[in-house]
Amino acid sequence: MRGLAQVVEVGPGDKKLTAEEAPVRAEEKPGGSSARPPLEALAALQCQLRAESARGHRVYLGVKLASAERRKPILERRRSIIQCIPGFWAKAIRNHPQISDIISEQDEDMLEYLVTLEVRELGGPKYRCRLMFFFRSNPYFLNEVIIKEYRLSLAGYRATRSTVVHWFWDYERGAPSRRLDTTSVNLFNWLSEHSLPGSGKIAELISEDLWPSPLRHYLRGTKAPVEGAQTGPVVAEEPVG
Amino acid sequence: MRGLAQVVEVGPGDKKLTAEEAPVRAEEKPGGSSARPPLEALAALQCQLRAESARGHRVYLGVKLASAERRKPILERRRSIIQCIPGFWAKAIRNHPQISDIISEQDEDMLEYLVTLEVRELGGPKYRCRLMFFFRSNPYFLNEVIIKEYRLSLAGYRATRSTVVHWFWDYERGAPSRRLDTTSVNLFNWLSEHSLPGSGKIAELISEDLWPSPLRHYLRGTKAPVEGAQTGPVVAEEPVG
Repeated sequence: MRGLAQVVEVGPGDKKLTAEEAPVRAEEKPGGSSARPPLEALAALQCQLRAESARGHRVYLGVKLASAERRKPILERRRSIIQCIPGFWAKAIRNHPQISDIISEQDEDMLEYLVTLEVRELGGPKYRCRLMFFFRSNPYFLNEVIIKEYRLSLAGYRATRSTVVHWFWDYERGAPSRRLDTTSVNLFNWLSEHSLPGSGKIAELISEDLWPSPLRHYLRGTKAPVEGAQTGPVVAEEPVG
Repeated sequence: MRGLAQVVEVGPGDKKLTAEEAPVRAEEKPGGSSARPPLEALAALQCQLRAESARGHRVYLGVKLASAERRKPILERRRSIIQCIPGFWAKAIRNHPQISDIISEQDEDMLEYLVTLEVRELGGPKYRCRLMFFFRSNPYFLNEVIIKEYRLSLAGYRATRSTVVHWFWDYERGAPSRRLDTTSVNLFNWLSEHSLPGSGKIAELISEDLWPSPLRHYLRGTKAPVEGAQTGPVVAEEPVG
């Protein structure tokens, strides 16, 4: 029994791990060939590791930038075409299988005023993305654009900044303090509250699924001629900046 | 007031966003030059986008693999040296400013049996990492190795699999059902429970800080000769596989 590394397989797919796969056992002989005192040798190695990590990261950023540059003209053409299709993003959002679950009646109305949506991957050492929602005149808020930014760390997808929403009712009543009831999760609350529980998941659905493949969702449930080309098996894609 | 995109700056540093920076407004003329019906043109663009994303991802995986290959021999030498320093990882863990906050008395005892620690970045389209803790005979569990794997998605850092811990007391009492009280967050509970709240944060501290820079933590509070080389300003590093 000793040494058994039985593994709970929570996600599907990957093979199980066993103790035999463990790379190095401390019981093995050290094998270090350095004649220097261990801590000094370790300090030198840490410098090498840092330099190597920094180098790898520079290359990675270069690759990311080049890839974004290649996608840019395609995304610009996509944006132009989508502008010719009234209510495109609203319909794509409404049809999204997970996002539709949180759409309230008020959301349905608010989506009527959504003009366009943009998702952009931001530079920097950590993954950051910016979600931008452009609105026409609406009965809810003064803002023409609501921006939500997220940063991805190993501890989670954290909202780092978001637009302050200027509610009409705040100004009508002369006291910009009244807040919505944000106890339920819906698109309206997610959009207007900085740190709604489950905020990261909604941002993930928008930036990792809706944004890379809006046409698939727009066409969901319709019999448009191009449907076949867009409703095949979903291929997991990296976020498209 | 209309059009103002006032932004809550939660994270420090970055400049504020304004509506003027928004890239495209739906009120502008479409500008699309395609003569095809919009949905058909959109379908063609989505194919291009997917191909471009897939290409970018292949390049990224190549870069990641090459970088891991370059770090591999350095990490192997580091492992050899660390094996010559008894209790190295236990001390580094105990000295870590955030991890030390959750170390209980039982954790202190358990760390005496920790032989070595390994963190490995796994392949695949998404970032995944594997944390491996190797133990010598101890009064708590039969396992020689406890493995915890996490996957990073935009919704958070999720534990995807972890070793089933074979408790001595389960076998002593003949019923492998009794569980620890895991209502508090400590290293012991984190290690043995698959989905402890805050699990992702602890995994992040280990894989993004302790693993890339263990010597800095090992030396914390001591006056070792190499300390100066390791206790300078902390440079944020990418996870080292």
